Amino acid sequence: MLSGSSQFVMSWTTWRSIRRLCSNSKHIPELTKDRYQVKRGKFAEISNQDITTLESIVGKNHILIDPDDVQPYNIDFIRCVRGYSRVVLKPKSTQQVSEILKYCNNRKIAVCPQGGNTGLVGGSVPVFDEIILSTQAMDNIETIDEISGVVVCQSGCILERLEEKVNEKGLCMPLDLGAKGSCHIGGNVSTNAGGLRLLRYGNLHGSVLGLEVVKADGTILDLLSNFKKDNTGYHLKHLFIGSEGTLGFITKVSIFCPAASKAINVAFLGLESYDKVMKTFLLAKQQLGEILSSCEMIDAQSLECSTKPFNHTSPIADYPFYMLIETSGSRAEHDEEKLHDFLNCAINSGIVLDGTTTNESRKMRDIWFLRERIAPGILHDGFCFKYDISVPLKQFYDIVPVMEKRVGSLATRVCGYGHIGDSNLHLNVSCPEFTQEIYKLVEPFVYEFTSSLKGSISAEHGIGFLKPNYLKYSKKPEALSLMLEMKKMLDPHGILNPYKVLPREL
Amino acid sequence: MLSGSSQFVMSWTTWRSIRRLCSNSKHIPELTKDRYQVKRGKFAEISNQDITTLESIVGKNHILIDPDDVQPYNIDFIRCVRGYSRVVLKPKSTQQVSEILKYCNNRKIAVCPQGGNTGLVGGSVPVFDEIILSTQAMDNIETIDEISGVVVCQSGCILERLEEKVNEKGLCMPLDLGAKGSCHIGGNVSTNAGGLRLLRYGNLHGSVLGLEVVKADGTILDLLSNFKKDNTGYHLKHLFIGSEGTLGFITKVSIFCPAASKAINVAFLGLESYDKVMKTFLLAKQQLGEILSSCEMIDAQSLECSTKPFNHTSPIADYPFYMLIETSGSRAEHDEEKLHDFLNCAINSGIVLDGTTTNESRKMRDIWFLRERIAPGILHDGFCFKYDISVPLKQFYDIVPVMEKRVGSLATRVCGYGHIGDSNLHLNVSCPEFTQEIYKLVEPFVYEFTSSLKGSISAEHGIGFLKPNYLKYSKKPEALSLMLEMKKMLDPHGILNPYKVLPREL
Repeated sequence: MLSGSSQFVMSWTTWRSIRRLCSNSKHIPELTKDRYQVKRGKFAEISNQDITTLESIVGKNHILIDPDDVQPYNIDFIRCVRGYSRVVLKPKSTQQVSEILKYCNNRKIAVCPQGGNTGLVGGSVPVFDEIILSTQAMDNIETIDEISGVVVCQSGCILERLEEKVNEKGLCMPLDLGAKGSCHIGGNVSTNAGGLRLLRYGNLHGSVLGLEVVKADGTILDLLSNFKKDNTGYHLKHLFIGSEGTLGFITKVSIFCPAASKAINVAFLGLESYDKVMKTFLLAKQQLGEILSSCEMIDAQSLECSTKPFNHTSPIADYPFYMLIETSGSRAEHDEEKLHDFLNCAINSGIVLDGTTTNESRKMRDIWFLRERIAPGILHDGFCFKYDISVPLKQFYDIVPVMEKRVGSLATRVCGYGHIGDSNLHLNVSCPEFTQEIYKLVEPFVYEFTSSLKGSISAEHGIGFLKPNYLKYSKKPEALSLMLEMKKMLDPHGILNPYKVLPREL
Repeated sequence: MLSGSSQFVMSWTTWRSIRRLCSNSKHIPELTKDRYQVKRGKFAEISNQDITTLESIVGKNHILIDPDDVQPYNIDFIRCVRGYSRVVLKPKSTQQVSEILKYCNNRKIAVCPQGGNTGLVGGSVPVFDEIILSTQAMDNIETIDEISGVVVCQSGCILERLEEKVNEKGLCMPLDLGAKGSCHIGGNVSTNAGGLRLLRYGNLHGSVLGLEVVKADGTILDLLSNFKKDNTGYHLKHLFIGSEGTLGFITKVSIFCPAASKAINVAFLGLESYDKVMKTFLLAKQQLGEILSSCEMIDAQSLECSTKPFNHTSPIADYPFYMLIETSGSRAEHDEEKLHDFLNCAINSGIVLDGTTTNESRKMRDIWFLRERIAPGILHDGFCFKYDISVPLKQFYDIVPVMEKRVGSLATRVCGYGHIGDSNLHLNVSCPEFTQEIYKLVEPFVYEFTSSLKGSISAEHGIGFLKPNYLKYSKKPEALSLMLEMKKMLDPHGILNPYKVLPREL
């Protein structure tokens, strides 16, 4: 039996290594405005008088204006976009956020909200000279109620710290991400982060009980209900979950935390076809029921990425498909018996060819390594086109062989892996280096294919700066119009995170 | 071991008996406009030409205009409000709904959306002469995908029928209500219905994957994502979950259904104080973890309502407090062992005084009887003031003794019971008949008390026609303003379910 959640430590370690790789890079990306030829909105340019006023709101120790200090806040985590903001503000309180936004709204100064800056779609850094409004200094945990499981905290709390604190009370956070050591809960909520526990605990629209949000004009919206049941009028908090900081700035979060699991088990399986993978998932849902906490699929080409470059060995090999299944529950012996019986059934009926299971911390880490190192491992091929889509389970893997045929020998590798338990596929097309030829074969084909299956072109990463023009593949014109109306209503001057999320044209 | 979910059959039987009681009643309630002195909005009065046009949209068999046929649609389930609509429309398709709303919006004819008409706050019947737009003929189940658990259906599907159909595929609906035999899934979503499975499967904001909605102007919004992960722009569907038909008319629902449980167990416990009840809930959360599916509290005064009038006996008696705990899981012997150990621990440590546990269908029904018959049983006292509030667990029971002292001998009974697992208390004050004296002692005190604890004045029933003026006790002015702005944006002529949900004055 294992206490704690070693798989999440693993995943955070991976994230940290990617991050180190990125931050150590001397490569300063081209300015976004030049690379993407975007046009600056009609916002005011920030003056010295503005800086003096903003400093008077947050205090001298909570403003950065030295270009060297500001630079890291201008560049995104994967170093693909760069803004040129002059100023970072780190307010401590909701009141300060309100005063800042009121001032900026009156002056028509654009604002880029920023949490841990771990986003993957360029949503958390400025595109031009937007001032950066960081949640970094808003990291107070107000209450952890072990009886109801309700936690109330400021939006700048780092997810990993929250996890540690709620663990002390026998609870766990309902979400976990590779980026847990850096990401802020406010950013998680703003981007409706998915992650590793979604299969078990559902999404943030279910877990978040209430929010405190500051509107573009500085109005403080106290939507901080602490109850699972609260049917008093429109459920306004959902406007701000997943709208990526374009409708309001989240200052506080009230979230429901389930009881922490006492036992964790991991199984790693080999299978001969995607059809068998799907059947195994169905069997796991039926037989493991309430203790199933992760269900991941990895194809052979993906597994090679997490073994070869790292000299890591898989406990089973030479199968076209693999699955990683994790259980977590309140009683080790019960969970192990369920898992054992499920595996027996899967192997005896021939849907699984081979498998191994463990509850030992080190071995579980080794197995999670196989899943978690695919993303960094694939970068050894050179360049990688990466997609994060939701598609129906029956067609979950269809795009992989289709894409393989399409790009032919231009690609080093076409592989698919991901959260089959949540219908979320990570499709990767690697090649020695970026070329227009392969790019044009891959895009917009991947979006058209996803759209033809009524899938989602962004399952968990969001839209940010990089994907607004692809929104049309997943959202109908009527929905896009309503999005624009919502934006206009809540932020008439458009100062909050401009150039992000909303389609540039309809 | 029990297959299926007998407790829900029980609760539906109760609901049916209440319904029969109400429908058999010869009492025709006073017209809402007279009883509540509301002022009719500036909507068009429906003409014969309008009826001809509307009939041409839905067809002769889908319109009711005979006053006797229309009458049941004008009166709410608990017979406390009555409108005087002339016409009921029962469209079969989204396209028909769109044409109807487009016409009504242009003509400024007010519309009252109606599902199974099982609401408890007067939200589902007209206040004046609004045309009734019923989901009754929209009952097609489009797909049940046993692999992903995703069900797509029209909004008029009856919850119980959906439950039966998904059961056949080894799934269960993530919500269950006493009214399941009559209520429509579209109404459930519109009112964000809570119910008996919320503790286990969370609320509808988490379970509903997508919606198709028709706006007041007839625009069809296809928000029918079938994926748990879909971060493509604003999460618009949540606008329509819980807004009680005032922002749009739901035509289709896509919902995630978990695997059905194979084993169910029920325990009934006796305790000496509310403090011990809370401690027992905490212990149950820790020890039963993933299999805890209901946690209910009943005080002695409440238990008397479900025993005495029905000559029903409780398996344990003479305690100030009782708890009903249900587990449901994938393996009977594991669940029973967990429950047994939990009870041993609770009794040995002295927090529970006595208890009984069963997995036999009949005995479980008898125990659920004790919880489900409180509501009809209390009516034997004469008149009953009923409240449905969410309050923090530490103060969950505080209002009961306070209210008891406040109303003194004017009340027959002051009692509290409810979903302690969801912080949801049902407070009841019964008396021989309604009097202004006791009414003034109870209201608005109960709302002020709830508000002082930052609680919710309507946990699951919603706001409807009866509670808009109490919204201020749970929602700040800034939130109420935003609600009004939302309404104006989505329904500028205010034709959708007027006089409901939104505060009449700020």
